[in-house]
Amino acid sequence: MVKRVVILGAGFGGAYTAMHLEKYLKKTKEPFEITIVNRENYFVFQPMLAEVVGGSLGILDTINPLRKLLRKTVLFFREIDSIDIENQKIFLTPKFSHKTREVPFDHLVLALGTVTDFRGMAGLHEHALPFKNLADSIAIRNQVIDVLETAARTHDQALKNKLLTFVVGGGGFSGTEVVAEVNDLVHNLAKEYPEIDHNQLRVILIHSKDRLMDKEMPESLGRYAEKLLKKRGVEFRFGAHLKTATPEEAILDTGEHIPTKTVISTVPSSPNPLIEGLPLKFERGKIVADAGMQAEGRDNIWAIGDCAAIPHLAGKGICPPTAQFAIREAKVLAYNIAASISGWEKKEFRFKALGMMGALGHQSAVAELFGKFKFSGLLAWMMWRMIYWIKLPGMSRKVKVALTWMLDTMIPIEAVQIKTAASQGIAQLHFETEEIIFHEGDVGDYLYIIVNGEVEVYQEKGKEKNVIAKLSKGEYFGEMALLNQRSRLATVKCLSPVDVLALRKSDFGILISNFQQLRKDFEETEKTRSREIQ
Amino acid sequence: MVKRVVILGAGFGGAYTAMHLEKYLKKTKEPFEITIVNRENYFVFQPMLAEVVGGSLGILDTINPLRKLLRKTVLFFREIDSIDIENQKIFLTPKFSHKTREVPFDHLVLALGTVTDFRGMAGLHEHALPFKNLADSIAIRNQVIDVLETAARTHDQALKNKLLTFVVGGGGFSGTEVVAEVNDLVHNLAKEYPEIDHNQLRVILIHSKDRLMDKEMPESLGRYAEKLLKKRGVEFRFGAHLKTATPEEAILDTGEHIPTKTVISTVPSSPNPLIEGLPLKFERGKIVADAGMQAEGRDNIWAIGDCAAIPHLAGKGICPPTAQFAIREAKVLAYNIAASISGWEKKEFRFKALGMMGALGHQSAVAELFGKFKFSGLLAWMMWRMIYWIKLPGMSRKVKVALTWMLDTMIPIEAVQIKTAASQGIAQLHFETEEIIFHEGDVGDYLYIIVNGEVEVYQEKGKEKNVIAKLSKGEYFGEMALLNQRSRLATVKCLSPVDVLALRKSDFGILISNFQQLRKDFEETEKTRSREIQ
Repeated sequence: MVKRVVILGAGFGGAYTAMHLEKYLKKTKEPFEITIVNRENYFVFQPMLAEVVGGSLGILDTINPLRKLLRKTVLFFREIDSIDIENQKIFLTPKFSHKTREVPFDHLVLALGTVTDFRGMAGLHEHALPFKNLADSIAIRNQVIDVLETAARTHDQALKNKLLTFVVGGGGFSGTEVVAEVNDLVHNLAKEYPEIDHNQLRVILIHSKDRLMDKEMPESLGRYAEKLLKKRGVEFRFGAHLKTATPEEAILDTGEHIPTKTVISTVPSSPNPLIEGLPLKFERGKIVADAGMQAEGRDNIWAIGDCAAIPHLAGKGICPPTAQFAIREAKVLAYNIAASISGWEKKEFRFKALGMMGALGHQSAVAELFGKFKFSGLLAWMMWRMIYWIKLPGMSRKVKVALTWMLDTMIPIEAVQIKTAASQGIAQLHFETEEIIFHEGDVGDYLYIIVNGEVEVYQEKGKEKNVIAKLSKGEYFGEMALLNQRSRLATVKCLSPVDVLALRKSDFGILISNFQQLRKDFEETEKTRSREIQ
Repeated sequence: MVKRVVILGAGFGGAYTAMHLEKYLKKTKEPFEITIVNRENYFVFQPMLAEVVGGSLGILDTINPLRKLLRKTVLFFREIDSIDIENQKIFLTPKFSHKTREVPFDHLVLALGTVTDFRGMAGLHEHALPFKNLADSIAIRNQVIDVLETAARTHDQALKNKLLTFVVGGGGFSGTEVVAEVNDLVHNLAKEYPEIDHNQLRVILIHSKDRLMDKEMPESLGRYAEKLLKKRGVEFRFGAHLKTATPEEAILDTGEHIPTKTVISTVPSSPNPLIEGLPLKFERGKIVADAGMQAEGRDNIWAIGDCAAIPHLAGKGICPPTAQFAIREAKVLAYNIAASISGWEKKEFRFKALGMMGALGHQSAVAELFGKFKFSGLLAWMMWRMIYWIKLPGMSRKVKVALTWMLDTMIPIEAVQIKTAASQGIAQLHFETEEIIFHEGDVGDYLYIIVNGEVEVYQEKGKEKNVIAKLSKGEYFGEMALLNQRSRLATVKCLSPVDVLALRKSDFGILISNFQQLRKDFEETEKTRSREIQ
């Protein structure tokens, strides 16, 4: 019987496990086949994503088609619908059909990493840009270009200030790297805009601890990074959390409100929702595994990388969630699965980190090697590039990245945006108390449905304020301008924190013209409300 | 008084007009300023877009930031809301605010080109991929990769056939180029999939005339292209129109049904909806202008490129809609506007085409020069590349494209997909009579609302067919599986051509949980229908 090894996720943990497992094909006692399931058809070289934001790497230079890396593995590029541990099956969501695809397994490797999960965090869910995958990097880059272009053309100083302020939440590794790249990008691009005053640019990092990369780097290097970024213009808010965001501002738990149109958050890093609720043992959201990476109490379920709690035999606690560890875990895990199929003795994972590195944009970085040597500045940056370049899988990728880096020194970065799809039809928005959702006279571009909270609808005539309605959960507003193609007849202000769904005019039109019940409903509401507005 | 010259659109016509106009700044009698409005912040080198589909050019290699090309022009990267010729104003849609932006003009240049407009073409609007801009090229490439990946994994032979069939509508210049690139891409990529049999791949071009590029090329070269593409496996349907498409097939006006999941259409090329209804004279959708490019009867409105009907003084009829002409028209137009401001005498546009070229993928092309010399094959292809490379604006772009082309000969193309945004929430679908929208037992992934046509809902028990309901315009179905998380309890078949809106499960969930009236409505329908289903 051919054993079926199914790997979920093709990050460093999953992809490298498959690569190593391919070497054991035909060497085990019983034959086996490898299947990997991943959303994208490529492997992303995560540590370089921040460089995509800054534009020092081309979009495609950080990724590698899995089909090239894994020649002997069955590949599924799909969303996973559910995992059935007891019946040993995975279900994939339909694609080009309406049928769920069933994938049975004998051994299952969970390598699903973590996700940036804003669920339950009002405001961040709606208005913060995550920084986790390639699409996020592209979205952040597009946003930066969008706000600069708009800032260059507006005469409204308050709006201009918001457009030129960039807030990043989280000062761990990825937060620090992304704020460095965003800061470089913003200042580089702003040079092209005579209408933008450099002194108006603000890039602000919010971190809950009192220094950068407190979990990953020794204090001296954290301080070095801070000093360097400060010199380049980054502002810091230590000991503060990003509490919420609205379309107009970022709000900290210290009470500070920062007017901005751009909020990026690298926290919180949460377990993938797919593994929640599986009949496995968890420790702070991670699957508890032994040093052989076997999930506790299960001899055919394995866990690796950021979603696993693997004892750190050469250190303390559990293995840190880094590429360095995941790559090495993968080698042992592949052996152990082969061993499990063949009845060989399993190995334990034991590895001492070689060091840590973090890029700080603009030819600088910080690094610590073997717990002793500390580097910073240009030397660390060259080391950073060299080491990652060596680790990049695939020769053609190596050539291309090297060329891009060479070109980079000659050709300045360019502010082109790639938009491949229309933005979504229904947007979720969060507003805080006293914020205005729209003003009388504004363009009627959206219909709003209140999910939570209360708003006040009013008109102003001189100093007189005429309150027309108070609306709350389940009620909607803004339909009048949409139905009649007029601008807003009233102002809507929040009386509490408010969550709304915003339906674009075009989508509203499609719904209303096809949904008889809905149209009747809107028309009646409009009649009533028209009477209330003089 | 500073005169305001506003240019709408930054294709070859608009961008080159601005470039030439910049040279006249400070040379005219009265001072003037130049403003350009364009949706994207880059200039696309249109003739190379087909190469992006095939992957022989990187995504960014065909585009150039307008900010680099136009240093002295005021740039707006926005959607245009409306044009007011009489009051000399343009209105731009809001961005990062709810206010429309007003842009006044003294001279207006309409350079809005054409759009691929499927309005009113049931089926094509919903299911055909247009091929017009960069996003379209990326979307086509992603689709080809998606269907190949899915085909490699499916055991359903009928589905596999559909996935491996590619239909292109339109055999003019762009249709021929895109079918050549798609064919190359499909065959190249398929090599990576041992599960895909090359003989199962079908690439079909549908053209209304009896030969390729009948408007653009002499017959001998059209025939050459046809022969060459046939040898590479492309099938042709001459004298046929693509009538409609559904999620499952392309339907020709000859009655032929081609089961496929991929329909690309390069026709029809229609006027930009923004110029429709303007108080100008039109001829077959194009703005009638004189040889000086002044719109008939207007001394401050100018038209250029594909949206203009400019007399072809060195040929017959009007100037053809090609880059070659637009670039040269721009030079004369820029002079005429400067002349208009300064009271100089205006010039007439007179140009004889140098020749025509079309790329056919895989190192071949066809070309005709000076109406005499005809080239085909590798020589034409090298000429094609050389001429376009010379025309590429921007030195850094030239270097990058040259490098990409060099690398291309060493490194095979890679099948990576870039998806930067989630797909839209509400999809429009078209089905033909007798087609099944979903089967009993399928996954319940969408709610459907009928826009047009009639469907039948039924269950089958053995050979017995139990019709539960007939539904038509304004009614909906599929809500039961969504409300109760079950799979489909019945099959839905079309009794006529049917247009539906499909609302994704997640979006339906958002609406239903927030819209009280809607929920009540659905729950009542469900109660009634549950009673009807045994």
